[in-house]
Amino acid sequence: MNFPARLLQSQKKSNSLLCIGLDTDVAKLPEVLRSHENPQYEFNRRIIEATSDIVCAYKINSAFYEAEAERGWRALRETLRGIPPFNISIADAKRGDIGNSSERYARIFLNELKFDAVTVNAYMGKDSIAPFLQSSEQCAFILAVTSNPGAKDFQYLKVGRKFLYEKIIETALKWNAKKNIGFVAGATKPNELRSIRKKAPSTPLLIPGIGAQGGSIETAVRFGCNNKGYLAIINASRSIIYASNGGNFAEAARAEAIKLREEINYWRGRFFKH
Amino acid sequence: MNFPARLLQSQKKSNSLLCIGLDTDVAKLPEVLRSHENPQYEFNRRIIEATSDIVCAYKINSAFYEAEAERGWRALRETLRGIPPFNISIADAKRGDIGNSSERYARIFLNELKFDAVTVNAYMGKDSIAPFLQSSEQCAFILAVTSNPGAKDFQYLKVGRKFLYEKIIETALKWNAKKNIGFVAGATKPNELRSIRKKAPSTPLLIPGIGAQGGSIETAVRFGCNNKGYLAIINASRSIIYASNGGNFAEAARAEAIKLREEINYWRGRFFKH
Repeated sequence: MNFPARLLQSQKKSNSLLCIGLDTDVAKLPEVLRSHENPQYEFNRRIIEATSDIVCAYKINSAFYEAEAERGWRALRETLRGIPPFNISIADAKRGDIGNSSERYARIFLNELKFDAVTVNAYMGKDSIAPFLQSSEQCAFILAVTSNPGAKDFQYLKVGRKFLYEKIIETALKWNAKKNIGFVAGATKPNELRSIRKKAPSTPLLIPGIGAQGGSIETAVRFGCNNKGYLAIINASRSIIYASNGGNFAEAARAEAIKLREEINYWRGRFFKH
Repeated sequence: MNFPARLLQSQKKSNSLLCIGLDTDVAKLPEVLRSHENPQYEFNRRIIEATSDIVCAYKINSAFYEAEAERGWRALRETLRGIPPFNISIADAKRGDIGNSSERYARIFLNELKFDAVTVNAYMGKDSIAPFLQSSEQCAFILAVTSNPGAKDFQYLKVGRKFLYEKIIETALKWNAKKNIGFVAGATKPNELRSIRKKAPSTPLLIPGIGAQGGSIETAVRFGCNNKGYLAIINASRSIIYASNGGNFAEAARAEAIKLREEINYWRGRFFKH
């Protein structure tokens, strides 16, 4: 089954477009986990256990695990093992290097850790992305329009009559023989999200920027979904995983995730017929 | 002492612009190291011991260490400890993410591992690079023109009358209050290297692409150096570290490094007066 079909299956099963970002910062963990042997892993394990039926995906931000060196890698690997097979796992790693180095990154994230998808930066061109496109079951999400303030510095440069991010999308779609390319497009950018969905009607979009970064859920749903109301993966990280820092953090995360799923599904009902 | 001054000191002390890229692939290690507890580290240790007096820098490609997971991180950390303080250490990591994630990457590579420099990808703009620019003693090398075939896909897009890579350089130079920005510019691109050096006359340039990738040393020296014949860091990886796969690999690496240093210095003598 190719990646878009797997994603669709997961979104139907969970009735959810929500993705939880496990940006798990050791300094912010609840007191109750401090004495645990690997608190980063234990935190993730409980969050996943409490939410896997109501989300389509988990996004693991590699920065937060690398920051913990060897123990972080172990936490990352063990976390991944705890994600049920019907949820999509995404390594938010933003890698991209010359062919033989990208091949190493692809090998660790896709072949060894067996993430279902990885985020990549296409500045170095086709051979820097090709190693991530070997299996039709696994997706490379290419950065298009990001949700941060610095997005304006280069992504909106005008290349002829188009923006740079549009050129990247058009070029990348030519590499999409296996239908395993997706794009990252921030919820903070409604017009851009709409234009990307128009150019790539059946491509998975990973949409960060709701919650702590201020993007709107209405925007993410309305412009991010395909014409059936699927294939947008709407990510929230901090607002879910740090919903409480008490012993009830996993239940609080579940409650917050349910709230977001309902809001997402409200807008799906408004904009799409199922 | 700021980063360019530290680099200059290292290049004068070693009389060398050569940087050895430790792209240490476990599958390619000499037979004699196979039984070692951490062969990746042991390989690097011996290469560094054999070459530290004749190179200005070592570049550690994080892809090859991540590919080995926990053991790779340990090898990376121990390798770094073995690099003498007068050599510059560069993490070739090509990171770049939203502020709070880039901050984590900067913390691990610059504050904890204490690399002297790190390579970064500026597609996400100023706030994605700022965390790497906190200390004037440590440098962020921003990708400009890379040495791989895919460089042509986006780096040469025309933005008005300029190439995208030129826009990136001009914008990044405005972030350079602490004089700790450098650029990555491939030796396979003579004209581009010349144009970058003209725009950034006193900026360190990290120049990959000689050796296995086919760039010329004459080009790297002539167009990469500042007007005194310094501040180009000319990297070779595979051609040095895999010069022999016998028990004499470290001596063979030294011999190859001496050959490259001599060739580099021959062209420095031709093009620059000391």
